[in-house]
Order: sequence, then structure tokens, then C-alpha cells
Amino acid sequence: MKHTISVLVENVPGALSRVTGLFSGRGFNIESLCVAETLDSNVSRITLVTSGNDQIVEQIIKQLNKLINVIKVLDFSSGEAVQREMALIKVRADGESRAEVLRIADIFRAKVVDVSPDYYTIEITGDFNKIHAILDLLRHFQVKEVVRTGTVAMARSRK
Amino acid sequence: MKHTISVLVENVPGALSRVTGLFSGRGFNIESLCVAETLDSNVSRITLVTSGNDQIVEQIIKQLNKLINVIKVLDFSSGEAVQREMALIKVRADGESRAEVLRIADIFRAKVVDVSPDYYTIEITGDFNKIHAILDLLRHFQVKEVVRTGTVAMARSRK
Repeated sequence: MKHTISVLVENVPGALSRVTGLFSGRGFNIESLCVAETLDSNVSRITLVTSGNDQIVEQIIKQLNKLINVIKVLDFSSGEAVQREMALIKVRADGESRAEVLRIADIFRAKVVDVSPDYYTIEITGDFNKIHAILDLLRHFQVKEVVRTGTVAMARSRK
Repeated sequence: MKHTISVLVENVPGALSRVTGLFSGRGFNIESLCVAETLDSNVSRITLVTSGNDQIVEQIIKQLNKLINVIKVLDFSSGEAVQREMALIKVRADGESRAEVLRIADIFRAKVVDVSPDYYTIEITGDFNKIHAILDLLRHFQVKEVVRTGTVAMARSRK
């Protein structure tokens, strides 16, 4: 099962290494990871996606909580959360394919952020499945490059 | 000076740890980092932003190139590149502030991705400065939480 884990850490050199080291030390692959500062520039948030046995992930979360520089750990796997990522997709768009690529971008509410005579660079946001869906469609036009941020998550707010 | 560095690595446990370890071992802080798979699921792309002395960054890039599992390293600091990130911002929006928060979101072409009686969760994409600009405006309405992906970059295509 996929787990999206959010880790608040002190913004100091080494904090990220300790977190990623905990996963690699157990031979656990991290599918995606984002880290950036929060509103408080002394605190960074790491959001990572890993898949594996629930029990082992639970153990890892316990160990994350014990790490130096770690402030708080949240597992969004079971709870309700907004989970989204961004991707930049450079796709061939010349001649007649140009209009069709634009149409697909529109349907997915994606933006064209760079244009050259032969290529469009498209920015798309959404969940993992949406990114895969547009990539599947654009594949027919020759996708030259994809850069993805990986998933970030935020708890939904309820009254 | 800020450096945006893109590292293609084999998608195996430990590859990310080795890259982040290289920075922390030198006491170098990583401001933001994203890692996710590319079109080839055996290859992941790490995009990281660090700031520091140009010479030291150059040394780090040389050492990155020597690391096991590293396929290719690009420094986007000098070159022309599309650099963007995504942020989710949970901001208080109740009563009369609701309309004004929506107006700000519209001006920045941001999307409301979750709504509760008291809060909007807004998704915004753009460069570092744009994210800071909207955060500065929304601060007056009480920002409860921010999750940022960190910057990703893609070379602009020229004929």
C-alpha cells in the first residue's frame, strides 16, 4: 500500500540525510520526496511517498519520531488529505499536432509555460492518476522530457 | 548565489541518501529538493536548490558526477530554464474575507482545491517570487498552513 508521510524537521544541514538514510538503511525505496521551508524558515517539511508493508511503515514512522531534528510525523495514508503534485512536460507540438496538444492541455486545465517552434512545455497539477492520464495521451505526440515534483499533502479542514 | 541542480539517478534505495549526504557532509544546506520518477521508471530525477559560493558548488557537482547511481548532473543556475514550484496554502476565509481571498487567488491564477466553512486551501504554481508574493498578501487573512514542493526546472527549448 502507498503511504504519504509528512515530516516536519528543523531546517539544518543533515536533517534530510537522516530521514532518507532511515529508509535506505532498510532497503526501502522512496518513490517521491519533496522538501521545502514552511512559514517558519527554521522549519522544513518533507513529504514522501513510499509503498510497502503497513507494519514496516509503522515501524519507520516510530523511528522517524525518534530522530534528532524531527519535530512531527504525520501519515496521510488513511486520513482525508488533499494530495497533489506538479509536472512539467515537454512534448513535441509542430504543424497539425499543435492544436491537438493544446486541446488536451485545456481539457486537463494545464498551462503552456514555454513555447518553441517544435515543442510546448506544459505545466500540470493534480493527483498521481491525473498526471499519468495526461502523460498517456501526450505519449502519442512524443514526450521529450518530464520533470515531476512528487506528491505533497495537506489535511482537509473540517468544521 | 542560488543554484538549481538537476541530478538523474538510478531509481534504487540509497541513491537519494548518497546525494543528500554529499551536501550535509560539507555542512551545506539544501533549501528545497524534489525527487520523482521520470518517463523511465528505472530513473529518478532529483532537483535541488542550494545557495553558496560558486566554487564550492562547482566542486559538489564534480563529486555528484562521481557518485554511484548518478547518471547525469545539470546546473540550471546560469542557463535558461523554466523554474517553477507548487504550493498548497490553507488560509482563513470566513464571512467577508471569503470574497477577497478568492479575488487574490484569481489574480494569481491559483485554484481553490478544498473548502470548509472557515478555510480555503489554495493551489498556486509559479516561481519562488510569485509564491512569496501571494503568501505576503494572504498573510493578512491568517495563513494556517503551507506545503511547498520546492523548485523543479526544465531547460527551455530553442530552435
